[in-house]
Amino acid sequence: MKLQLALFSSLFLNAYFYFCLFLHHHHHQPPPSLGWTGSAAREAEAVAAIDCSGHGRAYLDGVLDGGGLPVCECNKCYYGSDCSRLLHDCPADVDSGDAMFLEAYWQQRAASSAVVVSGWHRMSYFTDGKDDLTIELEKHIRILHQAVGNAVTDGKFIVFGAGSAQLINALVYALSPSNASSSPASVVASAPYYPFYKEQTNLFATRAYGWRGTTSDLANASVSSATNFIELVTSPNNPDGQFKQPVLGTSAVIVDYAYYWPHYSPILDPADEDVMLFSISKISGHAGSRFGWAVIKDEGVYERTTNYLSLNTMGVSRDTHLRALKLIKVMIAEKGGEGDIFEFGYRTLKARWSKLHELVSSSSRFSLQQHSAQHCNYFGAIRDPSPAYAWLKCEWKEDEDCHEALRKGSIISRAGALFEADSHYTRLSLVKTQDDFDLLLKRMQPLVSQEAMASS
Amino acid sequence: MKLQLALFSSLFLNAYFYFCLFLHHHHHQPPPSLGWTGSAAREAEAVAAIDCSGHGRAYLDGVLDGGGLPVCECNKCYYGSDCSRLLHDCPADVDSGDAMFLEAYWQQRAASSAVVVSGWHRMSYFTDGKDDLTIELEKHIRILHQAVGNAVTDGKFIVFGAGSAQLINALVYALSPSNASSSPASVVASAPYYPFYKEQTNLFATRAYGWRGTTSDLANASVSSATNFIELVTSPNNPDGQFKQPVLGTSAVIVDYAYYWPHYSPILDPADEDVMLFSISKISGHAGSRFGWAVIKDEGVYERTTNYLSLNTMGVSRDTHLRALKLIKVMIAEKGGEGDIFEFGYRTLKARWSKLHELVSSSSRFSLQQHSAQHCNYFGAIRDPSPAYAWLKCEWKEDEDCHEALRKGSIISRAGALFEADSHYTRLSLVKTQDDFDLLLKRMQPLVSQEAMASS
Repeated sequence: MKLQLALFSSLFLNAYFYFCLFLHHHHHQPPPSLGWTGSAAREAEAVAAIDCSGHGRAYLDGVLDGGGLPVCECNKCYYGSDCSRLLHDCPADVDSGDAMFLEAYWQQRAASSAVVVSGWHRMSYFTDGKDDLTIELEKHIRILHQAVGNAVTDGKFIVFGAGSAQLINALVYALSPSNASSSPASVVASAPYYPFYKEQTNLFATRAYGWRGTTSDLANASVSSATNFIELVTSPNNPDGQFKQPVLGTSAVIVDYAYYWPHYSPILDPADEDVMLFSISKISGHAGSRFGWAVIKDEGVYERTTNYLSLNTMGVSRDTHLRALKLIKVMIAEKGGEGDIFEFGYRTLKARWSKLHELVSSSSRFSLQQHSAQHCNYFGAIRDPSPAYAWLKCEWKEDEDCHEALRKGSIISRAGALFEADSHYTRLSLVKTQDDFDLLLKRMQPLVSQEAMASS
Repeated sequence: MKLQLALFSSLFLNAYFYFCLFLHHHHHQPPPSLGWTGSAAREAEAVAAIDCSGHGRAYLDGVLDGGGLPVCECNKCYYGSDCSRLLHDCPADVDSGDAMFLEAYWQQRAASSAVVVSGWHRMSYFTDGKDDLTIELEKHIRILHQAVGNAVTDGKFIVFGAGSAQLINALVYALSPSNASSSPASVVASAPYYPFYKEQTNLFATRAYGWRGTTSDLANASVSSATNFIELVTSPNNPDGQFKQPVLGTSAVIVDYAYYWPHYSPILDPADEDVMLFSISKISGHAGSRFGWAVIKDEGVYERTTNYLSLNTMGVSRDTHLRALKLIKVMIAEKGGEGDIFEFGYRTLKARWSKLHELVSSSSRFSLQQHSAQHCNYFGAIRDPSPAYAWLKCEWKEDEDCHEALRKGSIISRAGALFEADSHYTRLSLVKTQDDFDLLLKRMQPLVSQEAMASS
């Protein structure tokens, strides 16, 4: 009887094991083991697993350490093999508009945002679309604008650029007179404006266009009515976050909508200008991918723009087309849900602005630009301010050079003079890493307290 | 006894199954199942498995068919959902220098050439290197030149560009007088030359430089000795594959070494010019990645070049940095072995040249440029000709416009006039897909036979 029971048990166990080994697998359909992608996938996972203490990250193409793995690339002021050490007396660097505050968003969405580039991916000069575009990417850019409600793209042309940087000059060229006998177009902007406009236009000026200065300079000069103007407008504005309109009624206008996304700005009506610029650097945070686009109404302007782009760089890296498509697909899919990047961006920047605002308000040494809560069509609700930059004013007479005053307090900002504004102003970037922002607050604290001592 | 034997057998089987289920796995150490890369990897493998009959390929970012998978993108003249159908009377298109003959090389190296781009890969404007370079990529470019022996990079600066296309104008700018009062530099080349030089220089001409024409035009004109020249030289030359030297002794020279690689040319001494250009489009075939580099001796020229690049596009897509590094690593690792890309490229183009040569030689209607077998330092042996292009001459008087004569025979070539050469010449690209080359031979056949009829 015992023997029989033992045999019965053993047979049952056999049946069970047999089931586990040969049937169970089929039932649960485990993922088929990977073929040619396996080694690249494991390599990427190994690098992603490198511990950089939350103050850095390792990249697949980073410099290798002794063990053959890429080193951690640390946030500013952090160092050590795992970025765990904080440098003493390190200045807060809030100069650039590097939107690294979105890095955490993508790290949390590793699976959905990864992309495998095969060795033979889009090797050709030719894509499936016209003028070096890929059809799916162009389509998803239109879907993104529709989903966010920030721009009308129907019936308009789209061109891709290596960031909006490349497109600014391409559009200036396209809007300039093609007739060699015409006088050159005057490229202008209203202060304070993004300094890159002037630097770039000055470097690339041709017989057809040149930088003319600010629109307020023009008011004081005698301007021929025959002059062609190309007015550059950023809205919301860099540096001060205000909505802007062109001020020269008749001129050709390029509107840079880099910041017209719900992270930074309330979405009012969808923009419907003739020439509009967008950059993925401020939408998803991927400045390093060098990808932006223009939305163009006029076919002639579109054709001159694509001609410029084909003779400049023959289009944008198709590797980046692939990656941008994936990122945009994720942003569209997550829209309105828990993983909404616009919600994430808004929450992060609102918190930063509110902390900085509180600190600065406790002082009469500094002031910030005014922003009020406003209704946003995207969120369908009133939203608080969450600008990309603080446009800081030094109110003290002795702080006439505000950038320099901050520099003495170990804060690297972008001087107002670069924006052709009063030197009492300087720009603080609020879009960099959390470490950069935390250090900014830490360095601001004593500057505010100094005042307290001075006035007490 | 029977029962005991049964129990014994059953227990043995238990042990065996147990071993299989719980121990065996550990012994063989199967690859750990993938985490966040798994879905991107499976997606890429599914797309790579799409059957396009060898006359096309599907891409991850292609247009989707009804089933949600990307469609096949077919080689010229092929169509149908799997590219299996050949269009009747389809012209052979051998216009562009699209080096798709290397696609098969990368398809055969799927595992080693794939790369996973994580969602947070190099989002920043800033890289680990200076001037938007990544350190490992720059290092491997130097290693590649060392391994091939085609250029001296020691003690020289390297800059990255969106293809060599972007770098041509960046270098023209950098070599032009920075002093506004100087007369503009004259940009010149010797015919036949790559037409892009003229088209690009004309579009971007500034007060500092402009296109002046061919060097032979200069011989006939009165040229002030104060004129600054910038001479563009391609060696081996596009279109005719001949080694070229600058002809104006004192001028600034940009040498475009796009074709100075063992696929196309014997490697003689390593090039050691002041300003040298290279493009991945002709090395690995990845024209779509828009990646090239310049090797620059003078620090001032280097700095002006990087200034141009930062105001033009703020560097090159970091996604492409990552991919280019992977491709270059594969090329270095496979060097000298069975998978040597230079050997692969040489064998393919040698066979194409020899077939075309044989066909053309059977006719007195056409002739080709002369190439002789030459010793190559890279292969350490005499090598046969394997040029990227055939520089075809129509010998008949009635074929004065050779490009047009071929067009009538359903061959799309690049007209000699574009290279500022005699219209008796036209360029045939030998670097495109095998389908394009096969169709070229097929279309050439009757043109050659036509002659036979005329002269008999």
